[in-house]
Amino acid sequence: VLGDLVLTHDMIVEGVHFLPGDPPADIAWKLAAVNLSDLAAKGAAPLGMLLGYSLGSGAWNGAFIEGLRQAIDAFGTPLLGGDTVAVPHHAPRSFGLTAIGRAPAGGAPNRSGARAGDALFVTGTIGDAGLGLELARAGEDGTAPVRAYRRPVPLLAEGRALAPQVHAMMDVSDGLLIDALRMAEASGLSVTIDLARVPRSEAARAFAGDDRAARLAAATAGDDHALLFAASEAAVAASGVAAARVGGFAAGQGLGLMDDGGEIPLPGRLGYLHA
Amino acid sequence: VLGDLVLTHDMIVEGVHFLPGDPPADIAWKLAAVNLSDLAAKGAAPLGMLLGYSLGSGAWNGAFIEGLRQAIDAFGTPLLGGDTVAVPHHAPRSFGLTAIGRAPAGGAPNRSGARAGDALFVTGTIGDAGLGLELARAGEDGTAPVRAYRRPVPLLAEGRALAPQVHAMMDVSDGLLIDALRMAEASGLSVTIDLARVPRSEAARAFAGDDRAARLAAATAGDDHALLFAASEAAVAASGVAAARVGGFAAGQGLGLMDDGGEIPLPGRLGYLHA
Repeated sequence: VLGDLVLTHDMIVEGVHFLPGDPPADIAWKLAAVNLSDLAAKGAAPLGMLLGYSLGSGAWNGAFIEGLRQAIDAFGTPLLGGDTVAVPHHAPRSFGLTAIGRAPAGGAPNRSGARAGDALFVTGTIGDAGLGLELARAGEDGTAPVRAYRRPVPLLAEGRALAPQVHAMMDVSDGLLIDALRMAEASGLSVTIDLARVPRSEAARAFAGDDRAARLAAATAGDDHALLFAASEAAVAASGVAAARVGGFAAGQGLGLMDDGGEIPLPGRLGYLHA
Repeated sequence: VLGDLVLTHDMIVEGVHFLPGDPPADIAWKLAAVNLSDLAAKGAAPLGMLLGYSLGSGAWNGAFIEGLRQAIDAFGTPLLGGDTVAVPHHAPRSFGLTAIGRAPAGGAPNRSGARAGDALFVTGTIGDAGLGLELARAGEDGTAPVRAYRRPVPLLAEGRALAPQVHAMMDVSDGLLIDALRMAEASGLSVTIDLARVPRSEAARAFAGDDRAARLAAATAGDDHALLFAASEAAVAASGVAAARVGGFAAGQGLGLMDDGGEIPLPGRLGYLHA
């Protein structure tokens, strides 16, 4: 019914998705970015946003609006409207954002189109945001991982370039392993991931090292908003987007994990699970 | 950028827009209805909805979903997606809904197009929901006004029939007097309303009487979601929609109030003001 429009709506709640002491400008940025990342995974060009806003103090509101303005400028996506509500004093506040985008001409990819024989690719790095959350909880500020956690960047241009070339695509919001397994399940396939091939930033390697525990932590952390997609090598080359081949799809079901050339057991927890 | 689409996003918060003891099915219905009423005032045909949902108990969730399903069936507007979040225990819950509609071919009316000489019309009755809120607070249940408060009906067909005929239109969400004044201000005009002509339901007259105090209470109560519009008598006749002429627009500014053939002072409070 909506023609070529793509719509997404994500909410964030104080004490659940952000902490009362988090910088309000970062909360605003992140709210916009996580929704725009959903559009990126559909290869959609963002058209606008609607905001549902719980009022805070004057200073808090001002800082939030400044962060939202930064996101609007950075991503070129106007705020079209929304609603503002007062919440009872001391009640946790919540925010919702609807993003509207235009799907690519050939249609928006979904997570269920992977084919046996497809490779699994990642654009962007994995694990920075999870590490940033740990560092932020420990009181760190201003490091690259903390910035990755608080100011994720939706890969809009990459998503649009990739959309015509991929069989399935999604953004990594809950963790590489859990999200790859979801893509495999939706496609009726199995997926294998080689931990040694998962792209990690230099900053993350410097902070957390590169042993298996660090690789597993990265592959099971959420909030990265990298793009995860199923495609052939040739198709990715045609897109012009730099991407790391981290695994592949085959008949069957489930997730297989490799590291340093051999199969390894799955960790007990594949990603961040939230309501 | 969005072509002929109309978008609206309203939030409701426990303790502010609904009470913890309100029936969850009614809360769901009302959340859908208030957003669809915004589309009705634009003459838009609803295409779909996105829901931002705070999880409650299993029974509460089930009842909410049942009310949402009733609204979806009644208004023919599918749920396209959304987000579900857990909130901290005992925190007030909040819900947001985005409704998307297709604007009428000639464009969506707004509140700023009234012309000097236009009459002011109301479709639907005024004051039922405000009376219903009073009755609900006093423990009443099942009466027509309580039902009007908890289960408002967006006037979608009326809005679509009226849109090509009106100069300005909005729904009455905060009270007839305040909303008419807002239309006048947006249009750079003054507006006069005759209380004796304001349409009130038989049930509301039976409960609250028909003296000036009752008329003023009705004209300053919120949540009715009647349609308020500026048009000529001939245009309203052409629309085929039954509507009551309650006043008119002229050059100047401000609100004038009449009752029983003479001008009366404005009440101290013109409507329900909320954040």
